Amino acid sequence: MIRDLILKNRSYRRFYQEVDIKLDTLRELVDLARLSAAAANMQPLKYILSCEPQKNSLIFSHLAWARYLKGWPGPCEGERPSAYIVILGDTEISRSFGCDHGIAAQSILLGATEKGLGGCMIASIEKEGLLKTLEIPPRYEILLVLALGKPKETVVIETVGPSGDIKYWRDSKGVHHVPKRPLDDIIIS
Amino acid sequence: MIRDLILKNRSYRRFYQEVDIKLDTLRELVDLARLSAAAANMQPLKYILSCEPQKNSLIFSHLAWARYLKGWPGPCEGERPSAYIVILGDTEISRSFGCDHGIAAQSILLGATEKGLGGCMIASIEKEGLLKTLEIPPRYEILLVLALGKPKETVVIETVGPSGDIKYWRDSKGVHHVPKRPLDDIIIS
Repeated sequence: MIRDLILKNRSYRRFYQEVDIKLDTLRELVDLARLSAAAANMQPLKYILSCEPQKNSLIFSHLAWARYLKGWPGPCEGERPSAYIVILGDTEISRSFGCDHGIAAQSILLGATEKGLGGCMIASIEKEGLLKTLEIPPRYEILLVLALGKPKETVVIETVGPSGDIKYWRDSKGVHHVPKRPLDDIIIS
Repeated sequence: MIRDLILKNRSYRRFYQEVDIKLDTLRELVDLARLSAAAANMQPLKYILSCEPQKNSLIFSHLAWARYLKGWPGPCEGERPSAYIVILGDTEISRSFGCDHGIAAQSILLGATEKGLGGCMIASIEKEGLLKTLEIPPRYEILLVLALGKPKETVVIETVGPSGDIKYWRDSKGVHHVPKRPLDDIIIS
Protein backbone atom coordinates (compact mmCIF):
# COMPACT_ATOMS: atom_id res chain seq x y z
CA MET A 1 0.00 0.00 0.00
CA ILE A 2 1.37 3.36 -1.03
CA ARG A 3 -0.02 4.98 2.14
CA ASP A 4 2.07 2.68 4.33
CA LEU A 5 5.15 3.45 2.27
CA ILE A 6 4.51 7.20 2.48
CA LEU A 7 4.02 6.95 6.25
CA LYS A 8 7.28 5.05 6.57
CA ASN A 9 9.08 7.56 4.36
CA ARG A 10 9.93 10.15 7.00
CA SER A 11 12.80 12.64 6.76
CA TYR A 12 15.63 10.89 8.57
CA ARG A 13 18.82 12.66 9.58
CA ARG A 14 20.69 10.01 11.63
CA PHE A 15 21.82 6.74 10.09
CA TYR A 16 23.78 3.55 10.67
CA GLN A 17 26.69 4.94 8.71
CA GLU A 18 28.43 1.55 8.65
CA VAL A 19 25.64 0.09 6.49
CA ASP A 20 26.85 0.45 2.93
CA ILE A 21 24.64 1.38 0.01
CA LYS A 22 25.80 -0.02 -3.31
CA LEU A 23 26.15 2.01 -6.47
CA ASP A 24 23.69 -0.34 -8.20
CA THR A 25 21.10 0.51 -5.55
CA LEU A 26 21.52 4.22 -6.28
CA ARG A 27 21.19 3.53 -9.99
CA GLU A 28 17.94 1.61 -9.39
CA LEU A 29 16.61 4.56 -7.40
CA VAL A 30 17.51 7.08 -10.10
CA ASP A 31 15.76 4.82 -12.58
CA LEU A 32 12.54 5.38 -10.62
CA ALA A 33 13.00 9.12 -11.11
CA ARG A 34 13.77 8.56 -14.78
CA LEU A 35 10.41 6.82 -15.21
CA SER A 36 8.49 9.57 -13.41
CA ALA A 37 6.76 12.61 -14.87
CA ALA A 38 8.73 15.61 -16.11
CA ALA A 39 7.29 18.94 -17.28
CA ALA A 40 6.67 18.74 -21.05
CA ASN A 41 8.72 15.51 -20.88
CA MET A 42 11.90 17.62 -21.20
CA GLN A 43 13.78 15.56 -18.58
CA PRO A 44 16.38 18.19 -17.70
CA LEU A 45 17.44 16.49 -14.45
CA LYS A 46 20.86 14.88 -14.11
CA TYR A 47 22.29 12.98 -11.16
CA ILE A 48 25.56 12.58 -9.29
CA LEU A 49 25.82 9.46 -7.15
CA SER A 50 28.02 9.02 -4.11
CA CYS A 51 28.45 5.97 -1.89
CA GLU A 52 32.05 6.00 -0.81
CA PRO A 53 33.33 7.66 2.35
CA GLN A 54 35.55 10.30 0.78
CA LYS A 55 33.01 11.64 -1.71
CA ASN A 56 30.29 11.40 0.96
CA SER A 57 32.36 13.50 3.30
CA LEU A 58 32.93 16.17 0.66
CA ILE A 59 29.19 16.42 0.06
CA PHE A 60 28.35 16.36 3.76
CA SER A 61 30.52 19.40 4.44
CA HIS A 62 28.33 21.54 2.14
CA LEU A 63 24.96 20.73 3.72
CA ALA A 64 22.94 22.43 6.45
CA TRP A 65 20.87 20.16 8.69
CA ALA A 66 17.54 20.52 10.51
CA ARG A 67 17.20 24.26 10.92
CA TYR A 68 14.77 23.96 13.84
CA LEU A 69 17.06 21.83 16.00
CA LYS A 70 19.09 24.66 17.49
CA GLY A 71 22.50 23.61 18.67
CA TRP A 72 22.48 20.41 16.60
CA PRO A 73 25.10 20.73 13.89
CA GLY A 74 23.89 17.66 12.01
CA PRO A 75 24.69 13.97 12.35
CA CYS A 76 27.96 13.06 14.04
CA GLU A 77 30.56 10.77 12.51
CA GLY A 78 29.08 7.26 12.66
CA GLU A 79 25.52 8.52 12.09
CA ARG A 80 26.03 10.21 8.74
CA PRO A 81 24.41 9.18 5.44
CA SER A 82 25.94 6.22 3.61
CA ALA A 83 25.13 7.70 0.23
CA TYR A 84 23.92 10.76 -1.61
CA ILE A 85 22.12 11.53 -4.82
CA VAL A 86 22.75 15.08 -6.01
CA ILE A 87 19.96 16.29 -8.33
CA LEU A 88 21.11 18.77 -10.96
CA GLY A 89 19.26 20.82 -13.53
CA ASP A 90 20.86 20.78 -16.97
CA THR A 91 20.52 24.34 -18.28
CA GLU A 92 21.39 23.17 -21.79
CA ILE A 93 18.08 21.30 -21.78
CA SER A 94 15.93 23.80 -19.91
CA ARG A 95 16.28 27.05 -17.98
CA SER A 96 13.44 26.25 -15.62
CA PHE A 97 12.98 23.02 -13.74
CA GLY A 98 9.53 23.65 -12.28
CA CYS A 99 8.90 21.03 -9.62
CA ASP A 100 10.51 18.17 -11.54
CA HIS A 101 13.07 17.62 -8.77
CA GLY A 102 10.25 17.23 -6.24
CA ILE A 103 8.65 14.51 -8.35
CA ALA A 104 12.02 12.79 -8.81
CA ALA A 105 12.99 13.08 -5.15
CA GLN A 106 9.71 11.59 -3.99
CA SER A 107 10.07 8.61 -6.34
CA ILE A 108 13.64 8.03 -5.16
CA LEU A 109 12.81 8.24 -1.46
CA LEU A 110 9.79 5.95 -1.77
CA GLY A 111 12.05 3.47 -3.55
CA ALA A 112 14.65 3.80 -0.81
CA THR A 113 12.00 3.29 1.87
CA GLU A 114 10.85 0.10 0.19
CA LYS A 115 14.45 -1.16 0.38
CA GLY A 116 14.57 -0.52 4.14
CA LEU A 117 16.53 2.67 3.68
CA GLY A 118 15.53 6.24 4.36
CA GLY A 119 16.75 9.73 3.85
CA CYS A 120 16.20 13.39 3.66
CA MET A 121 15.70 15.91 0.87
CA ILE A 122 18.13 18.75 1.54
CA ALA A 123 17.75 22.13 -0.13
CA SER A 124 19.98 24.07 2.29
CA ILE A 125 23.15 23.56 0.32
CA GLU A 126 26.27 25.65 0.10
CA LYS A 127 25.95 25.39 -3.67
CA GLU A 128 28.97 27.28 -4.93
CA GLY A 129 31.27 25.25 -2.74
CA LEU A 130 29.66 21.96 -3.74
CA LEU A 131 29.85 22.82 -7.44
CA LYS A 132 33.56 23.48 -7.05
CA THR A 133 34.32 20.47 -4.83
CA LEU A 134 32.57 18.00 -7.13
CA GLU A 135 33.92 19.75 -10.23
CA ILE A 136 30.44 20.09 -11.67
CA PRO A 137 30.48 21.75 -15.12
CA PRO A 138 28.85 25.20 -15.22
CA ARG A 139 25.94 24.02 -17.37
CA TYR A 140 24.46 22.34 -14.28
CA GLU A 141 22.55 23.88 -11.40
CA ILE A 142 22.30 22.10 -8.05
CA LEU A 143 18.63 21.64 -7.16
CA LEU A 144 18.53 19.19 -4.26
CA VAL A 145 20.72 16.74 -2.38
CA LEU A 146 19.18 13.49 -1.20
CA ALA A 147 20.92 12.01 1.83
CA LEU A 148 20.41 8.25 2.15
CA GLY A 149 21.16 5.59 4.72
CA LYS A 150 19.69 3.07 7.09
CA PRO A 151 17.68 5.22 9.53
CA LYS A 152 18.83 5.28 13.15
CA GLU A 153 16.08 7.42 14.60
CA THR A 154 12.38 7.30 15.29
CA VAL A 155 10.23 9.93 13.64
CA VAL A 156 6.61 10.45 14.68
CA ILE A 157 3.92 12.51 13.02
CA GLU A 158 1.77 14.78 15.15
CA THR A 159 -0.99 17.27 14.46
CA VAL A 160 -0.26 20.99 14.33
CA GLY A 161 -1.89 22.60 17.36
CA PRO A 162 -3.89 25.83 17.63
CA SER A 163 -0.66 27.87 17.80
CA GLY A 164 0.04 26.80 14.22
CA ASP A 165 3.64 25.93 15.08
CA ILE A 166 5.06 23.58 12.46
CA LYS A 167 8.60 23.34 13.85
CA TYR A 168 9.77 19.78 14.34
CA TRP A 169 11.51 18.96 17.61
CA ARG A 170 13.43 16.18 19.29
CA ASP A 171 12.53 14.90 22.75
CA SER A 172 14.88 13.79 25.51
CA LYS A 173 14.86 10.23 24.15
CA GLY A 174 15.97 11.45 20.72
CA VAL A 175 12.57 10.85 19.11
CA HIS A 176 11.92 13.33 16.31
CA HIS A 177 8.40 14.87 16.33
CA VAL A 178 6.93 16.38 13.16
CA PRO A 179 3.70 18.41 13.35
CA LYS A 180 1.55 18.14 10.21
CA ARG A 181 -1.41 20.39 9.45
CA PRO A 182 -4.78 18.60 9.69
CA LEU A 183 -6.46 17.60 6.43
CA ASP A 184 -9.35 20.03 6.87
CA ASP A 185 -6.89 22.92 7.17
CA ILE A 186 -5.29 22.26 3.81
CA ILE A 187 -8.41 21.56 1.75
CA ILE A 188 -9.98 24.95 1.16
CA SER A 189 -12.93 23.94 -1.00
CA MET B 1 6.53 -2.84 -5.63
CA ILE B 2 6.96 0.89 -6.04
CA ARG B 3 8.64 0.39 -9.42
CA ASP B 4 5.52 -1.29 -10.82
CA LEU B 5 3.37 1.52 -9.49
CA ILE B 6 5.66 4.17 -11.00
CA LEU B 7 5.63 2.36 -14.34
CA LYS B 8 1.84 2.21 -14.25
CA ASN B 9 1.64 5.89 -13.29
CA ARG B 10 1.85 7.41 -16.78
CA SER B 11 0.52 10.83 -17.74
CA TYR B 12 -2.96 10.09 -19.05
CA ARG B 13 -5.03 12.64 -20.94
CA ARG B 14 -8.09 10.63 -22.03
CA PHE B 15 -10.47 9.10 -19.53
CA TYR B 16 -13.74 7.24 -19.08
CA GLN B 17 -15.46 10.43 -18.05
CA GLU B 18 -18.57 8.54 -16.93
CA VAL B 19 -16.60 6.85 -14.12
CA ASP B 20 -17.15 9.03 -11.06
CA ILE B 21 -14.50 9.81 -8.49
CA LYS B 22 -15.87 10.45 -5.02
CA LEU B 23 -14.91 13.40 -2.86
CA ASP B 24 -13.68 10.99 -0.18
CA THR B 25 -11.28 9.50 -2.68
CA LEU B 26 -9.86 12.95 -3.41
CA ARG B 27 -9.51 13.59 0.31
CA GLU B 28 -7.61 10.32 0.77
CA LEU B 29 -5.28 11.34 -2.03
CA VAL B 30 -4.62 14.77 -0.55
CA ASP B 31 -3.90 13.05 2.76
CA LEU B 32 -1.00 11.26 1.03
CA ALA B 33 0.39 14.66 0.07
CA ARG B 34 -0.18 15.93 3.61
CA LEU B 35 1.99 13.10 4.94
CA SER B 36 4.79 13.76 2.46
CA ALA B 37 7.88 15.92 2.86
CA ALA B 38 7.67 19.72 2.73
CA ALA B 39 10.60 22.14 2.72
CA ALA B 40 11.40 23.08 6.33
CA ASN B 41 8.07 21.38 7.17
CA MET B 42 6.32 24.70 6.38
CA GLN B 43 3.43 22.96 4.53
CA PRO B 44 2.30 25.97 2.50
CA LEU B 45 0.27 23.90 0.03
CA LYS B 46 -3.51 24.08 -0.02
CA TYR B 47 -5.94 22.13 -2.19
CA ILE B 48 -9.18 22.66 -4.08
CA LEU B 49 -11.09 19.49 -4.94
CA SER B 50 -13.51 19.04 -7.81
CA CYS B 51 -15.51 15.99 -8.78
CA GLU B 52 -18.76 17.31 -10.14
CA PRO B 53 -19.42 18.07 -13.79
CA GLN B 54 -19.99 21.80 -13.52
CA LYS B 55 -16.89 22.61 -11.46
CA ASN B 56 -14.87 20.16 -13.60
CA SER B 57 -15.93 21.96 -16.72
CA LEU B 58 -14.93 25.35 -15.31
CA ILE B 59 -11.47 24.02 -14.48
CA PHE B 60 -11.11 22.22 -17.81
CA SER B 61 -11.66 25.41 -19.76
CA HIS B 62 -8.51 26.96 -18.22
CA LEU B 63 -6.08 24.16 -19.05
CA ALA B 64 -3.78 23.56 -22.01
CA TRP B 65 -3.22 19.96 -23.05
CA ALA B 66 -0.30 18.03 -24.55
CA ARG B 67 1.71 20.71 -26.28
CA TYR B 68 3.43 18.24 -28.62
CA LEU B 69 0.20 16.84 -30.07
CA LYS B 70 -0.39 19.51 -32.68
CA GLY B 71 -3.99 19.83 -33.71
CA TRP B 72 -5.27 18.00 -30.61
CA PRO B 73 -7.18 20.47 -28.48
CA GLY B 74 -7.36 18.13 -25.48
CA PRO B 75 -9.83 15.41 -24.53
CA CYS B 76 -13.30 15.61 -26.08
CA GLU B 77 -16.49 15.54 -24.06
CA GLY B 78 -16.85 11.98 -22.77
CA GLU B 79 -13.09 11.52 -22.37
CA ARG B 80 -12.43 14.34 -19.94
CA PRO B 81 -11.18 13.98 -16.36
CA SER B 82 -13.73 12.97 -13.72
CA ALA B 83 -12.00 15.03 -11.06
CA TYR B 84 -9.34 17.61 -10.38
CA ILE B 85 -7.09 18.57 -7.51
CA VAL B 86 -5.86 22.15 -7.78
CA ILE B 87 -2.63 22.68 -5.81
CA LEU B 88 -2.22 26.17 -4.40
CA GLY B 89 0.62 27.89 -2.59
CA ASP B 90 -0.49 29.87 0.45
CA THR B 91 1.61 33.04 0.38
CA GLU B 92 0.63 33.83 3.97
CA ILE B 93 2.66 30.77 4.97
CA SER B 94 5.53 31.08 2.52
CA ARG B 95 6.56 33.13 -0.48
CA SER B 96 8.46 30.28 -2.10
CA PHE B 97 7.16 26.79 -2.61
CA GLY B 98 10.35 25.15 -3.86
CA CYS B 99 9.44 21.77 -5.29
CA ASP B 100 6.85 20.93 -2.62
CA HIS B 101 4.10 20.67 -5.22
CA GLY B 102 6.14 18.11 -7.15
CA ILE B 103 6.48 15.95 -4.05
CA ALA B 104 2.76 16.31 -3.31
CA ALA B 105 1.68 15.65 -6.90
CA GLN B 106 3.77 12.49 -7.10
CA SER B 107 2.27 11.13 -3.87
CA ILE B 108 -1.25 11.90 -5.09
CA LEU B 109 -0.77 10.33 -8.51
CA LEU B 110 0.85 7.20 -7.10
CA GLY B 111 -2.13 6.91 -4.77
CA ALA B 112 -4.52 7.39 -7.67
CA THR B 113 -2.69 4.75 -9.70
CA GLU B 114 -3.01 2.26 -6.87
CA LYS B 115 -6.78 2.87 -6.93
CA GLY B 116 -6.96 2.05 -10.66
CA LEU B 117 -7.14 5.71 -11.60
CA GLY B 118 -4.64 7.85 -13.43
CA GLY B 119 -4.02 11.41 -14.35
CA CYS B 120 -1.81 14.17 -15.48
CA MET B 121 0.06 17.00 -13.77
CA ILE B 122 -0.81 20.15 -15.66
CA ALA B 123 1.27 23.31 -15.31
CA SER B 124 0.00 25.02 -18.48
CA ILE B 125 -2.85 26.82 -16.78
CA GLU B 126 -4.58 30.04 -17.63
CA LYS B 127 -4.06 31.06 -14.02
CA GLU B 128 -5.71 34.46 -13.86
CA GLY B 129 -8.90 33.11 -15.34
CA LEU B 130 -8.93 30.08 -13.07
CA LEU B 131 -8.33 32.21 -9.95
CA LYS B 132 -11.33 34.33 -10.93
CA THR B 133 -13.60 31.46 -11.94
CA LEU B 134 -13.03 29.51 -8.74
CA GLU B 135 -13.10 32.69 -6.63
CA ILE B 136 -9.75 31.86 -5.10
CA PRO B 137 -8.67 34.49 -2.54
CA PRO B 138 -5.60 36.53 -3.55
CA ARG B 139 -3.39 35.00 -0.86
CA TYR B 140 -3.18 31.83 -2.96
CA GLU B 141 -1.05 31.11 -6.00
CA ILE B 142 -1.99 28.33 -8.41
CA LEU B 143 0.92 25.91 -8.73
CA LEU B 144 -0.40 22.84 -10.49
CA VAL B 145 -3.65 21.20 -11.55
CA LEU B 146 -3.93 17.43 -11.29
CA ALA B 147 -6.45 15.94 -13.72
CA LEU B 148 -7.78 12.57 -12.59
CA GLY B 149 -9.91 9.84 -14.08
CA LYS B 150 -10.04 6.25 -15.21
CA PRO B 151 -7.50 6.15 -18.06
CA LYS B 152 -8.82 5.40 -21.52
CA GLU B 153 -5.55 5.31 -23.40
CA THR B 154 -2.42 3.20 -23.64
CA VAL B 155 0.86 4.93 -22.88
CA VAL B 156 4.16 3.26 -23.68
CA ILE B 157 7.66 4.28 -22.64
CA GLU B 158 10.41 4.31 -25.24
CA THR B 159 14.05 5.27 -25.25
CA VAL B 160 15.17 8.65 -26.57
CA GLY B 161 17.04 8.05 -29.81
CA PRO B 162 20.30 9.61 -31.06
CA SER B 163 18.40 12.70 -32.27
CA GLY B 164 17.65 13.50 -28.64
CA ASP B 165 13.99 14.15 -29.46
CA ILE B 166 11.89 13.90 -26.29
CA LYS B 167 8.54 14.85 -27.82
CA TYR B 168 5.81 12.35 -27.08
CA TRP B 169 3.58 11.31 -30.00
CA ARG B 170 0.43 9.37 -30.72
CA ASP B 171 0.29 6.64 -33.34
CA SER B 172 -2.56 5.83 -35.71
CA LYS B 173 -4.07 3.46 -33.15
CA GLY B 174 -4.14 6.21 -30.53
CA VAL B 175 -1.28 4.75 -28.49
CA HIS B 176 0.71 7.48 -26.76
CA HIS B 177 4.51 7.04 -27.00
CA VAL B 178 6.82 8.75 -24.48
CA PRO B 179 10.59 8.79 -25.09
CA LYS B 180 12.64 8.73 -21.88
CA ARG B 181 16.38 9.41 -21.71
CA PRO B 182 18.47 6.32 -20.96
CA LEU B 183 19.79 5.93 -17.41
CA ASP B 184 23.42 6.36 -18.43
CA ASP B 185 22.60 9.71 -20.02
CA ILE B 186 21.19 11.17 -16.83
CA ILE B 187 23.82 9.92 -14.36
CA ILE B 188 26.82 12.13 -14.90
CA SER B 189 29.17 10.73 -12.24
